[in-house]
Amino acid sequence: MGEHLEKFFEPKSVVIVGASSHPGKSGNDVIQNILANDFKGDLYFVNPKGGEIEGRPVHTSISDLPEGIDQAIIILPASLNVEAVRQVAAKGIKAVVLAAGGFSEVDEAGESLQQQLVDVIKETGVRVIGPNTSGHISTPHNFTSSFFPLGKVPRGKISYIAQTGNFATHTMRYIITEENFGVSRVIGLGNKLDLDESEALEYLAQDPETSAIFMYLESIKRPRKFLEVASAATRIKPVVLLKGGATSQGARAAVAHTAAMATDDRIADAAFKQAGIVRIYHYSHLFMAAKALASMPLPPGRRVSFLAPSGAMLVCMSDLCHRDLGLEVPQLAEASRQRLQEISPDFIRMRNPVDIWPAATVHGVEYAYGEGMKAVLADPNIDAVVVVLMLTDGTGVPPLDFVVEAAAQFPHKPVYVTFSGDKLHMEAGKDFLEPRGVPTYRLVEEPFEVLSILARCTEAMNRPQL
Amino acid sequence: MGEHLEKFFEPKSVVIVGASSHPGKSGNDVIQNILANDFKGDLYFVNPKGGEIEGRPVHTSISDLPEGIDQAIIILPASLNVEAVRQVAAKGIKAVVLAAGGFSEVDEAGESLQQQLVDVIKETGVRVIGPNTSGHISTPHNFTSSFFPLGKVPRGKISYIAQTGNFATHTMRYIITEENFGVSRVIGLGNKLDLDESEALEYLAQDPETSAIFMYLESIKRPRKFLEVASAATRIKPVVLLKGGATSQGARAAVAHTAAMATDDRIADAAFKQAGIVRIYHYSHLFMAAKALASMPLPPGRRVSFLAPSGAMLVCMSDLCHRDLGLEVPQLAEASRQRLQEISPDFIRMRNPVDIWPAATVHGVEYAYGEGMKAVLADPNIDAVVVVLMLTDGTGVPPLDFVVEAAAQFPHKPVYVTFSGDKLHMEAGKDFLEPRGVPTYRLVEEPFEVLSILARCTEAMNRPQL
Repeated sequence: MGEHLEKFFEPKSVVIVGASSHPGKSGNDVIQNILANDFKGDLYFVNPKGGEIEGRPVHTSISDLPEGIDQAIIILPASLNVEAVRQVAAKGIKAVVLAAGGFSEVDEAGESLQQQLVDVIKETGVRVIGPNTSGHISTPHNFTSSFFPLGKVPRGKISYIAQTGNFATHTMRYIITEENFGVSRVIGLGNKLDLDESEALEYLAQDPETSAIFMYLESIKRPRKFLEVASAATRIKPVVLLKGGATSQGARAAVAHTAAMATDDRIADAAFKQAGIVRIYHYSHLFMAAKALASMPLPPGRRVSFLAPSGAMLVCMSDLCHRDLGLEVPQLAEASRQRLQEISPDFIRMRNPVDIWPAATVHGVEYAYGEGMKAVLADPNIDAVVVVLMLTDGTGVPPLDFVVEAAAQFPHKPVYVTFSGDKLHMEAGKDFLEPRGVPTYRLVEEPFEVLSILARCTEAMNRPQL
Repeated sequence: MGEHLEKFFEPKSVVIVGASSHPGKSGNDVIQNILANDFKGDLYFVNPKGGEIEGRPVHTSISDLPEGIDQAIIILPASLNVEAVRQVAAKGIKAVVLAAGGFSEVDEAGESLQQQLVDVIKETGVRVIGPNTSGHISTPHNFTSSFFPLGKVPRGKISYIAQTGNFATHTMRYIITEENFGVSRVIGLGNKLDLDESEALEYLAQDPETSAIFMYLESIKRPRKFLEVASAATRIKPVVLLKGGATSQGARAAVAHTAAMATDDRIADAAFKQAGIVRIYHYSHLFMAAKALASMPLPPGRRVSFLAPSGAMLVCMSDLCHRDLGLEVPQLAEASRQRLQEISPDFIRMRNPVDIWPAATVHGVEYAYGEGMKAVLADPNIDAVVVVLMLTDGTGVPPLDFVVEAAAQFPHKPVYVTFSGDKLHMEAGKDFLEPRGVPTYRLVEEPFEVLSILARCTEAMNRPQL
């Protein structure tokens, strides 16, 4: 178990069967991705036309390849996949990525092709990701098999298992360009002919390069195995799941997408919970929560304090925590409360949540917010802090180092920032804070939604043994 | 009723009592705002120091003012407000905005001052917004009393009634800089000593410059009157309410913010529903839903179609509609389905929601999305359409005119756009589409959340008479 998966995630040599010299073709995009990610291993190309690609020779057949290549990425029409697998296996290749669609997700002819693939996998003993996968990513090894133009993928400790092509493609572009966090392994499962979510989860659970696992699944191939693996994995690191097809309408869409069988969602839900899997229902939470974990610890619990420049936001976010998110907004310890009172005008009686603007009008934003953050972060009643910064031309925009410094003093409690005010300054605040390890969120509700998800992860990791 | 409110919203002349020549002072910021908004009426300043501000003379006392000014904005310490109101009333001024805090929201001395204000209002018959208000905005009249640096506020048909200073201040800056829609009237109610939400709602219900009303309230001063006014208003235009203090924790925060009394939320909820008020629970929805109404019609119903480049998004959004939002994703009429099938490869059987990427790979993004949008917009089974555009460097970014053109052909059905892919192109898409009347949303869930709110508005307007 896991041995051949290393040849997927840490290959020393890779061959692209169906390599192309034409920009915009999948067989070329995959090469551009591998080069953009500075892959250090040996790279081989196969195309019957021969010639050169990116200054490297192209082998005209698989049989011309040397023995002992670790991994093959096969980018050929569906009908040619069975023979290609047989040939790469004959060359001693143990790990194969099959990009082509056109198998059981399409029609009866595809089903027949898929059955032949099953047979050749069994016969040869190769391990396969796909078919119908957009590929996988392994930043610790500077490698990807994705044929979607990605560019350099930033390295981090978040890993994804996805029964959709999105995560090695356009969602990864979104993460790279907007969410500013790095990933470790990304696995597009495709049709799950061989490698499935259970084995992928088992691999990532023991992977030292993965600190948290996010999954999008529409079906579970071996439910018993999956729950067994998850029960162990969720004690080691957070495991978050978005299960597509939670409703009859969604399930119908899932049949069209991945031919997923509908399951009784309530039974699945209970089983997931027992296995410590934290279930989510918003696609966007797959990257919002990941961003928080990429640079901040898990919240030790559900007790949140927040600082806002607006009484209405204090009220609305208290409602949100209490009504929708299962978060507590507890009373502060007296020492913290007194500290907040010290920096505030007399007319306001300080409490949690923290109305920080009166203090800011007296002491300035930097001092008031900075001291306020430290007061609540030091509070033993508080597990996590959300800071709502008001940034407008009119009220002035201070340097935001104080946020980074206050957060750094309390490395065991997460701090998230959100904004109100001018787009320009919110963007600048995000661009300053995120590279310094403080996640930011555009809308005021979002950091609370993330805390709610991650507090459940903590509880799952600490759940009693049955 | 309503007569003196015109002097708030359509003043021909305004005096600022407490005008200041010092940038950054409230008594100066209000002047900058009025000038930035191109107020056409006469402007007077009062300050005991006299002199000039912005090239205009400053009167040293209220008694020096001419008779018959429409409105006074009083920016003085709380203790000076009673006398100032008495003096402006003596000059025939009928509409007064009181900016100062420091009344009943603070302490017992403030309560006493507030009682004196009540008495002087009764005695003089002036109408008052505030005290403790950040002011109001009336773009059809190029006017604002806000003392928060706003700049020019774009004109539109959305109006806000807010029991918080946010909407004439930093939330307005957010709307102006990020959400790209215009407003008509914005009323910061402050302590609601005189003008309250019931009268404001009655005014906006008959206001031809207001097409939709959004409210943030923490308390309701005259519940019976409010529900009576709302019952009529909600038949004419959408009325959306975020009620702060929906939970016991939120209610405690509301006591600290506006001294709002807690109400039994379930009883309030039933009464709001009967009055046709559409209740929301997210602060951010106050501007997300407003943006949709600023340029698109109300959805005629709950039946949505959406086009996405990703099977997983089709699945997840179907789940979201069905599980959380009460939206239907119905079968398409056969003519629409056939049209979608015509533009798609044979291997995919087209349905609602619409997997548009296969068609895009054959015909290009513009043709596939454009024709796909027209097919579902023409469908009698469909009330609204959400378009998920995938925009990345690798897949190419076409001109987005096709979205505007398809939407324009079906002016009675709303079209919202959301994105997946590169931040740069998503931002450019937003900047292109929103000025052309197509609202965009950053996260894929958001347009569906908005549709759910606005479909309830349609149902409220069409609800049976009791």
